Amino acid sequence: MSFEPFAPPPRILMGPGPAAVDPRVLAAMSHALLGHLDPVFLGAMDDVREMLRRVFRTVNATTLAISGTGTAAMEAAFVNVVEPGDNVIVGVAGYFGARMAEIARRCGGRVTIVETAWGTPVPAERFQRALAEATGPVKAVALVHAETSTGVLQPLDDIVKLAHDAGALVILDAVTSLGGVELSVDAVEGGAGVDVCYSGSQKCLGSPPGMAPITLNDRAMEAIRSRRAPTPSFNLDLVLLERYWGRERAYHHTAPINSLYAMHEALRLVLEEGLQARVARHQRVHEQLRRGVEGLGLEFLVDAPHRLPMLNALRIPEGIDDRTVRGRLLAEHNIEIGAGLGPLAGKIWRVGLMGYSAREENVARFLTAMRIILGAPRMSRPRRPS
Amino acid sequence: MSFEPFAPPPRILMGPGPAAVDPRVLAAMSHALLGHLDPVFLGAMDDVREMLRRVFRTVNATTLAISGTGTAAMEAAFVNVVEPGDNVIVGVAGYFGARMAEIARRCGGRVTIVETAWGTPVPAERFQRALAEATGPVKAVALVHAETSTGVLQPLDDIVKLAHDAGALVILDAVTSLGGVELSVDAVEGGAGVDVCYSGSQKCLGSPPGMAPITLNDRAMEAIRSRRAPTPSFNLDLVLLERYWGRERAYHHTAPINSLYAMHEALRLVLEEGLQARVARHQRVHEQLRRGVEGLGLEFLVDAPHRLPMLNALRIPEGIDDRTVRGRLLAEHNIEIGAGLGPLAGKIWRVGLMGYSAREENVARFLTAMRIILGAPRMSRPRRPS
Repeated sequence: MSFEPFAPPPRILMGPGPAAVDPRVLAAMSHALLGHLDPVFLGAMDDVREMLRRVFRTVNATTLAISGTGTAAMEAAFVNVVEPGDNVIVGVAGYFGARMAEIARRCGGRVTIVETAWGTPVPAERFQRALAEATGPVKAVALVHAETSTGVLQPLDDIVKLAHDAGALVILDAVTSLGGVELSVDAVEGGAGVDVCYSGSQKCLGSPPGMAPITLNDRAMEAIRSRRAPTPSFNLDLVLLERYWGRERAYHHTAPINSLYAMHEALRLVLEEGLQARVARHQRVHEQLRRGVEGLGLEFLVDAPHRLPMLNALRIPEGIDDRTVRGRLLAEHNIEIGAGLGPLAGKIWRVGLMGYSAREENVARFLTAMRIILGAPRMSRPRRPS
Repeated sequence: MSFEPFAPPPRILMGPGPAAVDPRVLAAMSHALLGHLDPVFLGAMDDVREMLRRVFRTVNATTLAISGTGTAAMEAAFVNVVEPGDNVIVGVAGYFGARMAEIARRCGGRVTIVETAWGTPVPAERFQRALAEATGPVKAVALVHAETSTGVLQPLDDIVKLAHDAGALVILDAVTSLGGVELSVDAVEGGAGVDVCYSGSQKCLGSPPGMAPITLNDRAMEAIRSRRAPTPSFNLDLVLLERYWGRERAYHHTAPINSLYAMHEALRLVLEEGLQARVARHQRVHEQLRRGVEGLGLEFLVDAPHRLPMLNALRIPEGIDDRTVRGRLLAEHNIEIGAGLGPLAGKIWRVGLMGYSAREENVARFLTAMRIILGAPRMSRPRRPS
């Protein structure tokens, strides 16, 4: 036997996700298994469904958790909605927008990319132009709410309105935003409302990776039900998944039992804290980080109005080696932060403050570690005993 | 707050899966999270990869665990291998064979179904005929090793040889068989060897559901790499997944961290026990069950030579109500067994003995409970104090 028991070191997870999870979530996850058709387990699925509705702020019947990662949920959105030949407009200002476009293309969509520089949100006018220039109807307009690769919060309302005026469905990637910034899937309180919205478990919702919430309104489900051919993905077929999660309980796959336990407890924690309080906490901790890194002379990639609280893209100062800093953070301080992706590789650090990781003590430890590594002067000197 | 903490009752899982898992697996799963690019986590992925090779008995480079359920792994096999217009021959003698055919069709395959009655294996001659009658080359021959819906062990060698002689790839569903009966993916010791083989975590491997091992040999990967168009599934693209699991570590998705911890410990347990000893244990416990249920007057659906040890399909006796028995087993004895699917609904019970659930004490408790419920005479009367 050459394989040692696995004993992970105690990391402070301040990368782009997964975030740390509350010990209550780990405890819930380690309960012994139930069968996936056990009435007690089905009750937990119902709870998760209802809690997800509250977190998404929707009354959508079709609200469930995909048994897979955020990427699976992204694919579920496109592979169900987009049929070969459909026009799809995708906003791309980062890695995950580009991934949406790639997936839409693989579904056979005629994809128009609406681009802007990484680090800025896509202006509504670009979508307006793409909608105006489209030949034939546009099936869907897709955009990323919180672009994890850049730390940009994408304003939604104008774009959603333009898309709906053109008869298109709106697909929103809320993997990083859900539970960390304001988001309402349904059109309430002046918000625009989106037709398809998916997220991940491991960011601001505070559960381990492996399940991915998704919600679709009747208009989106109607478009899916009236497809010319069934979706090429049996595994992600939302008509079948709805029959499995709904009253029919029609067998589709074996749910990841313990991941659902974890999600159940994570959602309970979200609702206990309250959505508004949770959003406020993410903002408060972000402000703490902002003050600290500005004190260290670091700059944000993103202009203040468009910054995400839970994903802070910091420019790597001239002359500082990216890998050395991240390596020392991990090796000497057990702190993980993220590297830049694509054109931002080597140019930014991504500091995540998500879910259970969004805590003041984490920010304090990160700032202390960075002061040591960057050799910056201490903010306050240790007092000598008088 | 109307959502109560989730406290699952202590079930004895003797259904078609998920099976119970060793407490060591639950303990491993509840370790705090690491980042998915943390070197320590990448080391655990490497371990899992190597342990999976030993369990699959293969040297295939492309051996990894899909971040999804067994259904995702099934879809991964077909959506990568099968291109639109490809001839695919699928053996169908149960629910999961039928699912393979459905998925192959959704991939655009020209599917020929080779059928036989549920409860029997598909004869090699049927495959031989289908191969002979095919117009044009056959891309793949697909079959289910252990048909979970019927309890049949499908003999492989003749069919694999026929398929290979015809130049077709062999796709094998080993969701229920891997770790519970003899299986060698590579052609060794007289075994035929298969080109693509996938499994699930929650059956005889003894891990919770949510990850699904898959292995492909060079011939299969070469067929995938020379596709005319990329697979429609980005999420299950095995070329990308291999780049993620391999040395390149190219980001593809966020691995389900804790599920991989669990798989790591489950595979360690498999190798500690030894594959042969594990197979022997499944057989021994199956024999114990067989003697017991025969004593109760119950009959197997499947003839002895083709019975699976880990999935026992028992005919429901005339005049006995399926739901009542399963309901009482669960409510009064905390024992879960499975119902029949499709044409076997109401006609069989499926008694699973998989992984950590394959234990003599479980069989004993099941037999005791069945004696009480079916009103059969006790095997031995309780002794009075003398």
